[in-house]
Amino acid sequence: MNQENEITQKKAQERLLDLLESADDATLLAFIHEELYAADLAEMAYDLGIENSQRILNLLDEKMAVDVLKDMDFSFREKLLTEYNAETIAHRFIDWMDSDDAVDLLNQLSIELRDQVISYMTDLEASRNIVSLLHYREDVAGGLMAKEFIKVNINWTVSQCTDEIRSQAENVSKVYSTYVVDDQEKLLGIVSLKSIILSNARSKVDKIYSEDVLSVNTYTPAEEVAQMMRKYDLIVLPVVDTLGRLIGRITIDDVVDFIKEEADKDYQLMSGLAEDVEISDRVWVLSRARLPWLLIGLLGGIASSRVIGLYGDELGAFPQMAFFMPLVAAMGGNAGVQSSAIIVQGLANNTLGSTNILPKLGKEFTVAFLNGLICAALILGYNLIVGNTNGLALTVSVALLSAIVFASLLGMIIPLLLNKFQIDPAIATGPFITTTNDLLGLGLYFSIGAMLLG
Amino acid sequence: MNQENEITQKKAQERLLDLLESADDATLLAFIHEELYAADLAEMAYDLGIENSQRILNLLDEKMAVDVLKDMDFSFREKLLTEYNAETIAHRFIDWMDSDDAVDLLNQLSIELRDQVISYMTDLEASRNIVSLLHYREDVAGGLMAKEFIKVNINWTVSQCTDEIRSQAENVSKVYSTYVVDDQEKLLGIVSLKSIILSNARSKVDKIYSEDVLSVNTYTPAEEVAQMMRKYDLIVLPVVDTLGRLIGRITIDDVVDFIKEEADKDYQLMSGLAEDVEISDRVWVLSRARLPWLLIGLLGGIASSRVIGLYGDELGAFPQMAFFMPLVAAMGGNAGVQSSAIIVQGLANNTLGSTNILPKLGKEFTVAFLNGLICAALILGYNLIVGNTNGLALTVSVALLSAIVFASLLGMIIPLLLNKFQIDPAIATGPFITTTNDLLGLGLYFSIGAMLLG
Repeated sequence: MNQENEITQKKAQERLLDLLESADDATLLAFIHEELYAADLAEMAYDLGIENSQRILNLLDEKMAVDVLKDMDFSFREKLLTEYNAETIAHRFIDWMDSDDAVDLLNQLSIELRDQVISYMTDLEASRNIVSLLHYREDVAGGLMAKEFIKVNINWTVSQCTDEIRSQAENVSKVYSTYVVDDQEKLLGIVSLKSIILSNARSKVDKIYSEDVLSVNTYTPAEEVAQMMRKYDLIVLPVVDTLGRLIGRITIDDVVDFIKEEADKDYQLMSGLAEDVEISDRVWVLSRARLPWLLIGLLGGIASSRVIGLYGDELGAFPQMAFFMPLVAAMGGNAGVQSSAIIVQGLANNTLGSTNILPKLGKEFTVAFLNGLICAALILGYNLIVGNTNGLALTVSVALLSAIVFASLLGMIIPLLLNKFQIDPAIATGPFITTTNDLLGLGLYFSIGAMLLG
Repeated sequence: MNQENEITQKKAQERLLDLLESADDATLLAFIHEELYAADLAEMAYDLGIENSQRILNLLDEKMAVDVLKDMDFSFREKLLTEYNAETIAHRFIDWMDSDDAVDLLNQLSIELRDQVISYMTDLEASRNIVSLLHYREDVAGGLMAKEFIKVNINWTVSQCTDEIRSQAENVSKVYSTYVVDDQEKLLGIVSLKSIILSNARSKVDKIYSEDVLSVNTYTPAEEVAQMMRKYDLIVLPVVDTLGRLIGRITIDDVVDFIKEEADKDYQLMSGLAEDVEISDRVWVLSRARLPWLLIGLLGGIASSRVIGLYGDELGAFPQMAFFMPLVAAMGGNAGVQSSAIIVQGLANNTLGSTNILPKLGKEFTVAFLNGLICAALILGYNLIVGNTNGLALTVSVALLSAIVFASLLGMIIPLLLNKFQIDPAIATGPFITTTNDLLGLGLYFSIGAMLLG
């Protein structure tokens, strides 16, 4: 968010906090309706606190209340929900939510409370829909889809479609198109709202519908759903069961959030965070997210102390070798992270092109050799200028070149191998590749030193 | 993309290559229409090569051809376009593209060729639209918007709206809603297609439109556009000029691409890549993207060699100190990257909460101290078990704890400071923070060593 907008939002929040302290409910509600959207309130909820958020939710009408609730920070919502009993959750929230949002919320409750809430629901069909959605894992299409959509029979007329849209208008808030099914509920195609508007009321659906519709199965991975919607510029994607029957739809807003979360996850892996954390999380959560990679780094550090220990004699004879240990180790680490990042991103974005790896390795070698040569030449110049011995200068430069080349190649090969064995290649970035390459660099440095100086 | 889908896509590509070699145009075209979407062809273009891509573009009808062209890899398209003259580009491509895609393509041409192409365009109004869009930078709303949208006057009836949709149906492919303007073209609100379908043809627009519409200015940063559309779950966002007149709209598909590109950029900065590169780029492009951070690492390495040099006497007296240099340096680097990543992500996602920094620093200190203590205790145990001297063991542990704490605090403060001065905080991740913290760790290690061992 840019500076200006951030300030507006911050001012609105301060004003809201003032009103929460001093004003009556009517003034408070008037301010909210005038100045804020549901998504704004959701964003502010954490700063407002549990008590204030509860008061606001009670004031709002049900529709706006569930819009606030659905966008709220996940862990804050969990805390907030403990303040309500099953009946209130059912009648004030779940009854008013789209099925996909309702399922997300129900999944935050204990199984016992969840079942109680469902039993309190007013609309039997809605509760059946929700129970059927609870089966799916969150990372497949079934876990992203909602049950709210408009379907029309292939044998209907346009005017029957209009009637169906009218009768469903309450339940389905965002209508972009209607799905065409046969008598067995099998998905046949779509009719856009535009063609409904432009067609005669007596036209038959089978004359105006388009067969050209992409769909996914309930078990299609969420990642693939996201890639399809992005690639084909879709704003909504129907979900079918194994018999091809239409059972749900996924809208782009859920997928946008998913894409953002996936990107954040790769970023976290690269930076050595084991879970999705925010500065507002509790100390032990923040600590737990960071410790695993720190421990890996610690093991790597111990291993490097053993490598250096092996060359204790050389170090004793040429103590100046110690000066350039961090340089060689760190440069290997840097070069390895760079090449692994290119591969991990290429795999994630599906832009690696053909799967023939040899020419790519050749190219990576050329790039690494070129960059290594430039760095090695620069450090050679530096060492000669400051008057280090020729032997040391040569050792540092040769070791640096080798470290950059080997680390780059490893940085390329490891994520490709992990991907082949269906392990997320992103774990090969960050501390893992840095630690490996630190070790590699040191090993190369000392063995080259032993040869050239010994 | 999951394994299964990847295989289907790969098979289709192999079959297409076969057909390109052996089959006549009709067979080739039939296969494409049967098996592939435009976005598939766009994805394959690089592997197919310039000549084949040209043959396919010539075979396709104009509408599909421009859909292939608009999704194509940017640098490949630049090469491909050099094969066409201005007249062909205008009549085969630009005439058929939405204005935002046309502008993207025109921006890839030399200014001279670009002006030629525009002068060849068939539709005068379309060419005027495009010229007006060429003014905007790519990173503001004006650079993302398209001129194709449907606007209706507040005084019209629903049946006039329907007529307008009919007359614009050719130009505006994706219609989600129509914008309501007054006689001065000022944006007043929206009418959804759903309400047009459900309203009587004689109803007046001012009775059925919704005033509740978010809009942005042409100069609103693209980043803010993306955040708004994500936060408020919008699929389309109108753009107004300084007088509030409606002049364009931004659709979610462009913003999804923008969100992905931004996330990729942060990932690249973290991994030490100075520009957006793919493994398919040329050697010197790949090399140029990596060299700047390698050179920064080199400078850091030289600086660390000077720091170590300062403590040459201590190293001579306690040569075993050299063994743990990489450990202390690397652990500081790791901890710093972790805390900077949390801050950079928090800033990007706007989830940092209130701007009061002191409590956050306190919490960061607690987390870092806790993790540092655990790591320090473990390495102390290791050193005592393997029989290193108490002095060395204590030095390593105290230095490790201090390095983790200081690096974590720096990793937090630096991106916050950069953000305050409106510099992208993401540059403070990756090699920059690692190099700084390597140095910091070494400095701490030797000064603590000098105190404890000296």
